[in-house]
Amino acid sequence: MEETFVPFRGIKNDLKGRLLCYKQDWSGGLRAGIRILAPTTYIFFASAIPVISFGEQLERDTDGTLTAVQTLASTAICGVIHSIVGGQPLLILGVAEPTVIMYTFMFNFAKDRKDLGQKLFLAWTGWVCVWTSLLLFLLAVLGACSLINRFTRLAGELFGLLIAMLFMQEAIRGVVEEFGIPQRGNSNQTALLPSWRFGNGMFALVLSFGLLLTALKSRKARSWRYGTGWLRGIIADYGVPLMVIVWTGVSYIPVNDVPRGIPRRLFSPNPWSAGAYSNWTVIKEMLDVPPLYIVGAFIPATMIAVLYYFDHSVASQLSQQQEFNLKKPSSYHYDLLLLGFLVILCGLIGIPPSNGVIPQSPMHTKSLATLKHQLLRNKLVSTARDSMRRNANLSQLYRNMQEAYNEMQTPLVYQTPAALGLKELKDSTVQQASSGGYIDAPVDESVFDVDKDIDDLLPVEVKEQRVSNLLQAFMVGGCVAAMPLLKKIPTSVLWGYFAFMAIESLPGNQFWERILLLFTAPSRRYKVLEEYHATFVETVPFKTIAFFTLFQTAYLLLCFGITWIPIAGVLFPLLIMFLVPVRQYFLPKFFKGAHLQDLDAAEYEEYPAITYNLSFEDPVTQTRATNIDSGEIFDEIITRSRGEIRHASSPKVMSSTQTPHEEMMPVYSPRLTQRAYSPRLNEIRTERSPRSNQGLEIKQTPSPGPSILGQINRGSSSS
Amino acid sequence: MEETFVPFRGIKNDLKGRLLCYKQDWSGGLRAGIRILAPTTYIFFASAIPVISFGEQLERDTDGTLTAVQTLASTAICGVIHSIVGGQPLLILGVAEPTVIMYTFMFNFAKDRKDLGQKLFLAWTGWVCVWTSLLLFLLAVLGACSLINRFTRLAGELFGLLIAMLFMQEAIRGVVEEFGIPQRGNSNQTALLPSWRFGNGMFALVLSFGLLLTALKSRKARSWRYGTGWLRGIIADYGVPLMVIVWTGVSYIPVNDVPRGIPRRLFSPNPWSAGAYSNWTVIKEMLDVPPLYIVGAFIPATMIAVLYYFDHSVASQLSQQQEFNLKKPSSYHYDLLLLGFLVILCGLIGIPPSNGVIPQSPMHTKSLATLKHQLLRNKLVSTARDSMRRNANLSQLYRNMQEAYNEMQTPLVYQTPAALGLKELKDSTVQQASSGGYIDAPVDESVFDVDKDIDDLLPVEVKEQRVSNLLQAFMVGGCVAAMPLLKKIPTSVLWGYFAFMAIESLPGNQFWERILLLFTAPSRRYKVLEEYHATFVETVPFKTIAFFTLFQTAYLLLCFGITWIPIAGVLFPLLIMFLVPVRQYFLPKFFKGAHLQDLDAAEYEEYPAITYNLSFEDPVTQTRATNIDSGEIFDEIITRSRGEIRHASSPKVMSSTQTPHEEMMPVYSPRLTQRAYSPRLNEIRTERSPRSNQGLEIKQTPSPGPSILGQINRGSSSS
Repeated sequence: MEETFVPFRGIKNDLKGRLLCYKQDWSGGLRAGIRILAPTTYIFFASAIPVISFGEQLERDTDGTLTAVQTLASTAICGVIHSIVGGQPLLILGVAEPTVIMYTFMFNFAKDRKDLGQKLFLAWTGWVCVWTSLLLFLLAVLGACSLINRFTRLAGELFGLLIAMLFMQEAIRGVVEEFGIPQRGNSNQTALLPSWRFGNGMFALVLSFGLLLTALKSRKARSWRYGTGWLRGIIADYGVPLMVIVWTGVSYIPVNDVPRGIPRRLFSPNPWSAGAYSNWTVIKEMLDVPPLYIVGAFIPATMIAVLYYFDHSVASQLSQQQEFNLKKPSSYHYDLLLLGFLVILCGLIGIPPSNGVIPQSPMHTKSLATLKHQLLRNKLVSTARDSMRRNANLSQLYRNMQEAYNEMQTPLVYQTPAALGLKELKDSTVQQASSGGYIDAPVDESVFDVDKDIDDLLPVEVKEQRVSNLLQAFMVGGCVAAMPLLKKIPTSVLWGYFAFMAIESLPGNQFWERILLLFTAPSRRYKVLEEYHATFVETVPFKTIAFFTLFQTAYLLLCFGITWIPIAGVLFPLLIMFLVPVRQYFLPKFFKGAHLQDLDAAEYEEYPAITYNLSFEDPVTQTRATNIDSGEIFDEIITRSRGEIRHASSPKVMSSTQTPHEEMMPVYSPRLTQRAYSPRLNEIRTERSPRSNQGLEIKQTPSPGPSILGQINRGSSSS
Repeated sequence: MEETFVPFRGIKNDLKGRLLCYKQDWSGGLRAGIRILAPTTYIFFASAIPVISFGEQLERDTDGTLTAVQTLASTAICGVIHSIVGGQPLLILGVAEPTVIMYTFMFNFAKDRKDLGQKLFLAWTGWVCVWTSLLLFLLAVLGACSLINRFTRLAGELFGLLIAMLFMQEAIRGVVEEFGIPQRGNSNQTALLPSWRFGNGMFALVLSFGLLLTALKSRKARSWRYGTGWLRGIIADYGVPLMVIVWTGVSYIPVNDVPRGIPRRLFSPNPWSAGAYSNWTVIKEMLDVPPLYIVGAFIPATMIAVLYYFDHSVASQLSQQQEFNLKKPSSYHYDLLLLGFLVILCGLIGIPPSNGVIPQSPMHTKSLATLKHQLLRNKLVSTARDSMRRNANLSQLYRNMQEAYNEMQTPLVYQTPAALGLKELKDSTVQQASSGGYIDAPVDESVFDVDKDIDDLLPVEVKEQRVSNLLQAFMVGGCVAAMPLLKKIPTSVLWGYFAFMAIESLPGNQFWERILLLFTAPSRRYKVLEEYHATFVETVPFKTIAFFTLFQTAYLLLCFGITWIPIAGVLFPLLIMFLVPVRQYFLPKFFKGAHLQDLDAAEYEEYPAITYNLSFEDPVTQTRATNIDSGEIFDEIITRSRGEIRHASSPKVMSSTQTPHEEMMPVYSPRLTQRAYSPRLNEIRTERSPRSNQGLEIKQTPSPGPSILGQINRGSSSS
């Protein structure tokens, strides 16, 4: 995206791009069928649970003026509107912590003014929203979002880690409060006796750690050894919501003697109780606000506008990272404009506005990448099976698969040539096969191993559509009706879920990985290189890495510290935005340009350092090893939570179908040695499109006695 | 061991063998220096904690006649005696659950007899011990232990799993009881109000799961990525005791309002309190026991003798498994004879006798294998460095290392030729080097990579000595004095420790692995083959495996069920011994002989299925990859808890020191291809001594696009 500040140009470009794929956004989502429910449910829980919890917090802090009903309503309304008319449907909207802090501050200000008071609080926030949206319109029209490119990894990852810290803080504070007397509620209750409070706190520890540990485990279910693939898939897809239900069930186990109120559960008024609707008519009271306050509302509005501009854009940026190979265009300006409309709408009906949220937005993209992988795979497998049944030869097979693949592609102007990866691989494979005399023979499983080879063909793609976002927004709306059911969830399960979200957002964050690197024994630092995109480990001296990371950590702690200051707290995004000039003008004085570039790169292209290996000694093992579940490998690639996807080829390596007499020397045929290890190998590799994630890598890991092979090499190289 | 029933022959052989290495048992242990404390502490905790807990149980069940003081005293006395004059010093003695059950039964019997009563209970058990020891003498003299060879994997592993189940049952029962009113103690206490009991139970859950999870994690510390190697080593060696201390500390965190008695802590009288010594003079009362009861004592004595015969021998067998490569001889008969003396000694001073315990005994051997590995490694590394400094050439270097290695070996008649593995490897390496023209040049790190190559040289060996056993027995004795300190440990931490012991004993148990296999998705069954000795996965049809495992599981449940029957419970070893005829005469009717042999083999020789692999593309990674901590790899090999050690070569593969121009094609030199992949490869491999754990394996894991290499192979094989 170029930096342009010509009014309306950004919005126009965004609209043009998104309109082209609007129809496909819906049809593609609907074609996915029932499977769309997996990412939908996953995101629904990630979205609804914090919103409910923030609603509870807001209720305490605003003496019940705003409740979880209002935060859920805002999230649902904004979500539905954004998913239908918004630009980037990967972006998830919700009421976020900064909004809650801001509203609390405004409430404390308003309730002490005689001519405002609790009565006119919502009307006044209406005015704040009006000003905020005007500022957002201005920012959107003037193309402020094109500055987003200057938000490097430095700022984005620091923000991501800050959000994780805030979530974790919420989790810890929540569990600690389970030992104390809640602010709300009758303190004469049996459940609030010191003895029962102790029990309640300990139970909360059990429930929250139980949820946290099982949820983390369940996300990795695809690589479990036990259970059928079907069951493991279900657990990986729906494990987290399932665990919320399971631990809610566990919370009902103690019944004997245990009084009501242990464990504490979600507290929220039923939406149909009296007074829950007072806010909807707030627009009538807006003119009762004294003019001074109407003008004064501009001050909090500036802060909220800055906050939303930053938060919304970064959330959108994180959900569209390079590594996801998105096909559809971004829409920063138009989305900010729409956010302005949403803010004014929320203000007028007296509910807190929603904006793009982290980490839910990148979580959404990741879950859709998993979905797309499953869909593509099923289609290609059935096509290949079908072709084989009709005795197609290898090139026919590939032609059919190419067609099937193209069918599943979005026909867009923005798209790169449809199936580059597929085509390229087909060519090379066909060429190889023809030199082996296989080209005209009907293909069977011994030449083309359907399950395996198709996995190798598939690049990382995301199912970009609007259905999952719309559905999850509807489900959040449904929560308002399902409030009696939601109230059964113990608060301690929520705290566990907060901790889960914080931890899920860490992997893939290079800042976090660099912090860990500081604690890594020097001899093990190479492991970082194996697992993540971490060119810097090789190219930047460790001292420089350490110094850079310490600077960033200090900055993070400063931002975190600021959130603790009652009023200034909401300004922490300003501090993060301040990183842009810091990065551009201040840091280059202390770090070499090349080092800074490696430590703060926007994207990475690199070859994988290590893959699994397979023994060739044992044909049985080998055959089995190739059966590694595709989902598992994909998980490995995709679960770098911030969405870092390694451009690594899949670990599956050799055909599982060698004819028996090849078994002893399957890969070491003389032709191979001559060919693959020629100097041309490197050229081939570097010529490959970076988009196709099929790295051509050839590895060997002999493991002879002490170092026989090493000795041979030394010997041979000297001769 | 041949099956011989000539009187005294077994004892004589045992004595002859052990006397030869008796001096070395001590000197070798003392030479290990301070490092001996790691296995000692590990085993001390594994030994003392159950004994204390059984003591508590015994106190409840015998109305305070016997307490933890007596069980600790018995364990300490028998341990000290056995470690000094016993045959197999790897065997750990202790008061075990079956003994407790037996004593409880005898107490219940005695207290209801008018002419016996609680007063003469200990005197009567004195008579039981007399009879028991006579029976044990008889068994030892007649060579009953030579039957031990008939106890196949089937019986041993079933017994191991049964013990694990009993430990786990104890852990679960313990935690559940934390919610209830304890049998002992004033029920008017505040801590026993329903509300506090609830809190106590929940706290117990937190403490026990906390201990269990952190203890399991800490055992794997050597492979952690974070922290220095030194710190990780300490945590891996002392992590479990450390965690007991940490969680005891945590149990003191809640102080406000929480009454004394929460959480519940160990209860035991101080050894210096009045009445704690009544049992020591029991010998004086033995003649007061009515003659009928003296004769009748023969009945429980038979049961105990059978139990001890089995328990003691199997514990000894499990601690001397083939996979440990022990150098010193076994001593079944003599140890059983000694056990007879120990039983009579314990009986006469009125304490419950000790016998060889599972899983502590195999745990002991394993921790000593880790120790030996560390010692050998340090010695060889310093020798190699020294030789290099003196500009030795490769064969001088090996000669020096060979000498150093021999120095560390026990010079015994029973020993296999001292350093077979080392010698063999030296020869082949020297040969390789000479063909490269390196033979006469001074060795430097580029030819012999000290850290790496030495690890490859080291076979699995166990530091067989008596010091650790003696020290741990003294430490158990010290517990009697440290009782006031021990009483600070919460009981819930004990339950966590019981669960830890149960789980630690599972891996390596093939019966357990087969149970897991039943729950494994068919496509992932190969993984079992990768990780364990599991030839049967390849050679036996899955249905047969399943049927065999189900039979064994049913038998296990039968044994477990029997332990629940009040009196017959102690007879469960009989049921397990009954497996010997079942295996010999009954099972062959249902299973093919070859299948039975594979499913129930005593030992395994097989080639490892999969090792790590290293990329050769990236010399930096490669260099780093070779720095994998040796301890970690060894952990990987040794932590198969029942002591199964894979005959796998270490995953370190290529030299990290290739000259630059080799980097692109380091292992694929034409010479290698001609040599290593010749059909002779297999011969070479099978010629190798099974004792050396250096498998010669050559692996390749190219990962090209879809299956280019596969295609090439197919092509080339057909041409």
